[in-house]
Amino acid sequence: MTEQAKSTEEKVAEAGTAALELANVDDGTRSAALRNVADAIDANHERILEANAKDVAAAEELLEAGEYSQALVDRLDLSASKLDDIAEMVRSVADQEDPLGRTLEARRLDEDLELYKVGVPIGVIGTVFESRPDALVQIAALSLKSGNAVILKGGSEASHSNRVLYELIVEATADVPDGWAQLIEAREDVTTLLGMDDSVDLLMPRGSSEFVSYIQDNTSIPVLGHTEGVCHVFVDRAADLGMAADVAFDAKVQYPAVCNAVETLLVHEAVADEFLPAMVERYREAGVTLRGDAATREVVDVDPATDADWSTEYGDLELSIKVVDSLAAAVDHVNAFGSKHTESIVSEDADRAGTFMRGVDAASVFHNASTRFADGYRFGLGAEVGISTGKIHARGPVGLEGLTTYKYHLEGDGQLVATYSGENAKPYRHEEFDGAWTPGHLSDADE
Amino acid sequence: MTEQAKSTEEKVAEAGTAALELANVDDGTRSAALRNVADAIDANHERILEANAKDVAAAEELLEAGEYSQALVDRLDLSASKLDDIAEMVRSVADQEDPLGRTLEARRLDEDLELYKVGVPIGVIGTVFESRPDALVQIAALSLKSGNAVILKGGSEASHSNRVLYELIVEATADVPDGWAQLIEAREDVTTLLGMDDSVDLLMPRGSSEFVSYIQDNTSIPVLGHTEGVCHVFVDRAADLGMAADVAFDAKVQYPAVCNAVETLLVHEAVADEFLPAMVERYREAGVTLRGDAATREVVDVDPATDADWSTEYGDLELSIKVVDSLAAAVDHVNAFGSKHTESIVSEDADRAGTFMRGVDAASVFHNASTRFADGYRFGLGAEVGISTGKIHARGPVGLEGLTTYKYHLEGDGQLVATYSGENAKPYRHEEFDGAWTPGHLSDADE
Repeated sequence: MTEQAKSTEEKVAEAGTAALELANVDDGTRSAALRNVADAIDANHERILEANAKDVAAAEELLEAGEYSQALVDRLDLSASKLDDIAEMVRSVADQEDPLGRTLEARRLDEDLELYKVGVPIGVIGTVFESRPDALVQIAALSLKSGNAVILKGGSEASHSNRVLYELIVEATADVPDGWAQLIEAREDVTTLLGMDDSVDLLMPRGSSEFVSYIQDNTSIPVLGHTEGVCHVFVDRAADLGMAADVAFDAKVQYPAVCNAVETLLVHEAVADEFLPAMVERYREAGVTLRGDAATREVVDVDPATDADWSTEYGDLELSIKVVDSLAAAVDHVNAFGSKHTESIVSEDADRAGTFMRGVDAASVFHNASTRFADGYRFGLGAEVGISTGKIHARGPVGLEGLTTYKYHLEGDGQLVATYSGENAKPYRHEEFDGAWTPGHLSDADE
Repeated sequence: MTEQAKSTEEKVAEAGTAALELANVDDGTRSAALRNVADAIDANHERILEANAKDVAAAEELLEAGEYSQALVDRLDLSASKLDDIAEMVRSVADQEDPLGRTLEARRLDEDLELYKVGVPIGVIGTVFESRPDALVQIAALSLKSGNAVILKGGSEASHSNRVLYELIVEATADVPDGWAQLIEAREDVTTLLGMDDSVDLLMPRGSSEFVSYIQDNTSIPVLGHTEGVCHVFVDRAADLGMAADVAFDAKVQYPAVCNAVETLLVHEAVADEFLPAMVERYREAGVTLRGDAATREVVDVDPATDADWSTEYGDLELSIKVVDSLAAAVDHVNAFGSKHTESIVSEDADRAGTFMRGVDAASVFHNASTRFADGYRFGLGAEVGISTGKIHARGPVGLEGLTTYKYHLEGDGQLVATYSGENAKPYRHEEFDGAWTPGHLSDADE
């Protein structure tokens, strides 16, 4: 395959050329290409499952050798019904509103000098993701919908599946600029990618916190990444304790493996005696392993929590509990140990809720709701690109908009800065107006 | 001074604590503190100028030894009238609209489950800037107005001036959380700062392209930086040539030292014979040194341009000229050699202007206007934080909004994700609505 013969540099260069063209491909064409991808997945179950079987067989050998887990094999394993889900996901990305071309701001700097801030793709996005074939399809679909070229590097355990899916995607998207999606496969290609800060505009790594941190530490390309979710539920002294129990239970038990599940329950000392015994009982019935600080252990019989517990993302049916003597102590604990992901207070007191929500530094701060709502789909953002624990560019659940930036388009009729400078400088008007950029045209200044 | 005794780690930790409090200080308090700073500058001319005289004397010794330039000495040198300008600048930052607290989006996920996206400060911003005392005051003012704590590291040549200005700022802002501004002075403190990615949310380096690149290459903290401005004016075959000459002249000559000045003039071959001779004459009269490619030199007598010229930011009265045979060739040249800063086409053909503006990958793309308009003040963004040549977070001229991020505030009444999952899942409503977040309160769902 010629694909194999190309160097990473060549692939990234091709992606760069494609990105410039793709930025000007209309949404109809991008979305039709995505529907073609979905159709191609529907029409090629046999080819995909055959390749996937090779990956699964190799993974099962690793599993027998104790070098892989059943959960990872399950994640790798495709089936006809999983392929239906993947095709459906691609169609839903195609159905999303176009994230490009919107005029975000329009300002008249002076008569016949109009500034438009217009949404555009970022350019070339580098992605490195875990060994699950659906990830490759999802990332490619999100990139194409948002007009970005993409470098795809999946986990090596999924290599046969990824290669077939990549080929199908390229074949199905012949109507968009050639080279918009590039597959790289070797670990050393990732190293090359990390060094290409002149050609790659954004990196989106997926995987463990350690892996995302490794990427951040080894590149000067901006990284949009999710490190970890150490989330808290704070049961305030003014909480409706029935509501608090339901929220704390949902936040841990409804799906403990995910980043927006709660890891530490904070309980105001004024309600600890009343709240904790029944709560602990309910958690135990659901199989939750509990640890607590000294004040908690005066109320309920749980193992002692160590300092490490407060900053650990369990990702499992485990929970640490701490009794705090004030709202301020709860805020301080969250700011000291939380990962700026999602924090929730349960309280009937609006002022105290506001103090918590304002005081806590996190992407999502909730009042009387489960932390599990922190999710692009639940937030109504449409297709989810990821959840960012950084504060730059996009924060919290990120929708397609997170894969866009903007350009300033200025339409004039020959204006010079000299006219607006020095003595007798003409003043600027700086009036916001409603209008969308139309290439080469000025709006009516006297509207 | 105790300030001297503190380590960089202690200073950054203090800034982190202050940042959490400062995020909740209202605009009235932040702006009043800034007006105090302006008053303190007005009231302390003698103290500031005395310190500045030491810096200037040391710089003049370096100048005599041939190790410093007159331009740098001038930039360092303060005067009573420069101090007036600085105080005025601080007042104008105070007068800006509050960049914080706005509800950017409001969405009803379900009845009594309301999501608000609210503008908040970024947190702790690390800054490293050139040896000009006004820079310290400007950066501190922008940070405080946007609710961010700031680590200030100025050029060592301005150290006496910076220390006095820093002390005045700290004294004048006693009403905002202690520790919000921190001064570091040694080069090794910068190295420490670059490694503190857990505590510093954003770096804003100012200075040469090489310096900004050095910072980007030596930290995993996100960097908002300006590298260089290699800007073009393209005189299309459909240009009004009188307008083109004025725009091309303004873009180079009005102020050649700045990043939005033009470096390369691209001329369509169909108008080169008519356009170039008079243009070259006009540039020469203004003292511009010209170089051109072979096609240019067939029309006018200029020195040959080398490949290096196409990617050089002259920052001076120098210009390279290239004749291109098509609109596509102009776009390709810009995308190959431009620095994604500001690009302008002069053309009376709207379609061709649109093709250029869409095809060129740059923060600012202009039609029939000088590249020199690419500036936060001219764009109407208010106080300018800088001009970003990156595509992530903020692009092009950056106003105070570029020093903010957002938080998602979710107001519920005890909702659980379990209710919206699995069989019989309750559907989300996902309705946008007009509303501002009020802590602890739900809007009327039946508005």
